[in-house]
Amino acid sequence: SNNFFLLAGPCAIEGEDMALRIAEKVIAITDKLSIPYIFKGSFKKANRSRIDSFTGIGDEKALKILKKVSETFNVPTVTDIHEISDAEMAAAYVDVLQIPAFLVRQTDLVVAAANTGKVVNLKKGQFMSPESMKHAVTKVLDCKNQQVMITDRGTMFGYQDMIVDFRGIPTMKQFAPTVLDVTHSLQQPNQTSGVTGGRPDMIETIARAGIATGVDGLFMETHFDPANAKSDGANMLHLDYLEKVLTNLTAIRQTINNLD
Amino acid sequence: SNNFFLLAGPCAIEGEDMALRIAEKVIAITDKLSIPYIFKGSFKKANRSRIDSFTGIGDEKALKILKKVSETFNVPTVTDIHEISDAEMAAAYVDVLQIPAFLVRQTDLVVAAANTGKVVNLKKGQFMSPESMKHAVTKVLDCKNQQVMITDRGTMFGYQDMIVDFRGIPTMKQFAPTVLDVTHSLQQPNQTSGVTGGRPDMIETIARAGIATGVDGLFMETHFDPANAKSDGANMLHLDYLEKVLTNLTAIRQTINNLD
Amino acid sequence: SNNFFLLAGPCAIEGEDMALRIAEKVIAITDKLSIPYIFKGSFKKANRSRIDSFTGIGDEKALKILKKVSETFNVPTVTDIHEISDAEMAAAYVDVLQIPAFLVRQTDLVVAAANTGKVVNLKKGQFMSPESMKHAVTKVLDCKNQQVMITDRGTMFGYQDMIVDFRGIPTMKQFAPTVLDVTHSLQQPNQTSGVTGGRPDMIETIARAGIATGVDGLFMETHFDPANAKSDGANMLHLDYLEKVLTNLTAIRQTINNLD
Amino acid sequence: SNNFFLLAGPCAIEGEDMALRIAEKVIAITDKLSIPYIFKGSFKKANRSRIDSFTGIGDEKALKILKKVSETFNVPTVTDIHEISDAEMAAAYVDVLQIPAFLVRQTDLVVAAANTGKVVNLKKGQFMSPESMKHAVTKVLDCKNQQVMITDRGTMFGYQDMIVDFRGIPTMKQFAPTVLDVTHSLQQPNQTSGVTGGRPDMIETIARAGIATGVDGLFMETHFDPANAKSDGANMLHLDYLEKVLTNLTAIRQTINNLD
Repeated sequence: SNNFFLLAGPCAIEGEDMALRIAEKVIAITDKLSIPYIFKGSFKKANRSRIDSFTGIGDEKALKILKKVSETFNVPTVTDIHEISDAEMAAAYVDVLQIPAFLVRQTDLVVAAANTGKVVNLKKGQFMSPESMKHAVTKVLDCKNQQVMITDRGTMFGYQDMIVDFRGIPTMKQFAPTVLDVTHSLQQPNQTSGVTGGRPDMIETIARAGIATGVDGLFMETHFDPANAKSDGANMLHLDYLEKVLTNLTAIRQTINNLD
Repeated sequence: SNNFFLLAGPCAIEGEDMALRIAEKVIAITDKLSIPYIFKGSFKKANRSRIDSFTGIGDEKALKILKKVSETFNVPTVTDIHEISDAEMAAAYVDVLQIPAFLVRQTDLVVAAANTGKVVNLKKGQFMSPESMKHAVTKVLDCKNQQVMITDRGTMFGYQDMIVDFRGIPTMKQFAPTVLDVTHSLQQPNQTSGVTGGRPDMIETIARAGIATGVDGLFMETHFDPANAKSDGANMLHLDYLEKVLTNLTAIRQTINNLD
Repeated sequence: SNNFFLLAGPCAIEGEDMALRIAEKVIAITDKLSIPYIFKGSFKKANRSRIDSFTGIGDEKALKILKKVSETFNVPTVTDIHEISDAEMAAAYVDVLQIPAFLVRQTDLVVAAANTGKVVNLKKGQFMSPESMKHAVTKVLDCKNQQVMITDRGTMFGYQDMIVDFRGIPTMKQFAPTVLDVTHSLQQPNQTSGVTGGRPDMIETIARAGIATGVDGLFMETHFDPANAKSDGANMLHLDYLEKVLTNLTAIRQTINNLD
Repeated sequence: SNNFFLLAGPCAIEGEDMALRIAEKVIAITDKLSIPYIFKGSFKKANRSRIDSFTGIGDEKALKILKKVSETFNVPTVTDIHEISDAEMAAAYVDVLQIPAFLVRQTDLVVAAANTGKVVNLKKGQFMSPESMKHAVTKVLDCKNQQVMITDRGTMFGYQDMIVDFRGIPTMKQFAPTVLDVTHSLQQPNQTSGVTGGRPDMIETIARAGIATGVDGLFMETHFDPANAKSDGANMLHLDYLEKVLTNLTAIRQTINNLD
């Protein structure tokens, strides 16, 4: 179909029911729109601002739920890893290992992910230029792993805001397939509460710009009840809006595919 | 046609021949694509980094050329003003008075432009948030002039780079019709040479994102020989590329028009 | 005494009484500390965010008050100009003409100020690098006016914050005597209210860093009742704190003077 | 003596000879100036831009050299850790465990360091506000470890530059003793070569501002031959300049200590 692909799911795996419920809802939409889909869920939240933030339901338990989602719906899955020892553990359960933005400069972690032979999704650090992602991609390729992609999740703009630099899309596509993370790109970090804020009203705006500038895929966190999600509720797209957003984006993508 | 409109032309009016030649070329394309067109040219360049930069061929002379373009091709024209006394002078020759980004906080200048009754195009300062343009628009409206628009020309990002914040497009559209200046948004200021740099290879990328996020119009500087233009050569789009770019953008616009 | 010099006074000249009262208070302190002093006051506020902000008591009236302060206390004075025609008018009353940060790229205005033969104080644009101030200084020197100084008032850092780059102090001192504006550097612009915020608690911190890095002078706005001042109340230093701050800064300066 | 303290040494431990030679030279100076000294050296460089950058001589080998320096000269030592398993390993050899800026949001790593009972030095992320360091400090305190300090190493300013926000010094001192890293603060990251640049000519400027604004300590990388050092050569201070710089800073500190 030559449509964009989608990495989507809840921020954190909070339990089996919610994971399956979200996956089922998303798949109904992506099947209809011919969007290749990868279910996303974190098995652990390791980089919260505050020590009392939710960090997970248990690593093994969460990873098994990811596997269950994969088997139930026949979709690939992606999760993020934070320690070298996470790489092999997670690789036993998921198809794509994601390196968080804060950690993408940690060579040993990137190499550990690459050496599992799984697809590696490198998030661009908020402090990195699009050009500098070339070096991160090269670290994966040097491990004889050609399956690597880049995800942009915005760039630091003052202390409490992020901005997406769309010049970076064609730049990073020179190195690897490039994804735009439309929910984290809208974060507003360093809020005085210690809880990151967001602009979910801008998700479709940013996603349209991403599709128009040629991203290969989109990443978004979605939930049937963002306000009560255990992490990142301020950024997730409510599942009820997903079909309309993806329908619009698919229309733009089809136009883009036919341009000269 | 419900297409976007276009403000385009050379950075500075260098002479009658070049102005007519550029206008003719652009009009052939915009007529074909049903793009409402406003011819753009500066009669004076008042804010160069260096004192030895080109500043113009004479105010009156340049303004008369703008009038000539307007009469020859039956198109409206736009030029930028820098002093209160410029407002009435330029209003005698052009249809749209543009307030430069550096000057958009100068209340007296904005009021002088508004009081001519002409359309006022307010460029967002590189140092301003999209939200703060509300106050600039209000200054025009308070002069009983409803004909006001906003043009985004990028936001300062470090000393030597600019970035476009596409969250600003829907935000500013709440205040007035909003235009994206796709050539100045790609400037790279504060270069050690004292001559501003640019990224003309990114013009279509940025323009696509603008159309996809709903801009009402585009602004771009174009020339048949940017390398030899007397100012801003590093940013202008070569006229030879204009038709392809506008054709692609028109296709995206048509898709956007039909979205829910 | 080889102490730093000081440009200080109220943001705007609100009346003769307040101007004389502030000048008298400041002079009592600067005399005691051997600080060369220039009285500062704006005769017009031309670049407010909102049209309903206070803009002044009348140009001529305010300029005459500046002259009165100068004659009463035998101190030089400084005011900022916004239009070419302001240059000659203000030069008849004050000793130093200041080019506002937003306007420092306007060649005609800088040249008009330089041609009066008065000292020209160029404020670094919030959007400019320290290095690029070389070009602004050159414009003054090219008018055969050697009396030029630079004032740093902070650099844009995200939409709603400013930051002082102290690497810029030794850089700009290569071009001209360099002043740090410690009150405007702490502004927090683009607030949703349309009224600029500030961090007056940080004035001494920023001033100490300025003295330690070798600034030639300091600029600060001060008032006996900042909360009720007609403009920039959020940034001004209360006059009651001035002596202690300047005493501390003088001590640091004396140490700096004796370093290798 | 109430002088500031100093964390200094080479970027990476390249061998025993160089470590002892640098320590000896620094100690001769800090003893003379009554500066409490902590020898700094990385046992592993885990976050290089490029995979072919130097990463170390072997973990155990480098840690033993740190221990040797400590025993030979009776000085405490500091090294940075990157994985949870590094915490206990390094704690067997050094006195202070440092959390790198990119990793300071990794709760598990901070907790692992805190639980060793060693002093924890938290580097402020380039993407974090001074205020948000409160949460990182709280994570250490919650482990019943009161020995925590913060080190500022600059904040992202555009893609290829860093800036120090001196408003952050008094802010972070509210949470823990605060150190300024004067060499990394001057880095210029994301250079096209993949090798970070720097501005060593600005080290004393930035350090003076730090002392004047009240930092408790300074951090700097120093080497007898920066041009041939195996990492970060572009930022280190040549050892030959160290005495003059520290002498000047001590003079400013003494003045600051006596201020009101």
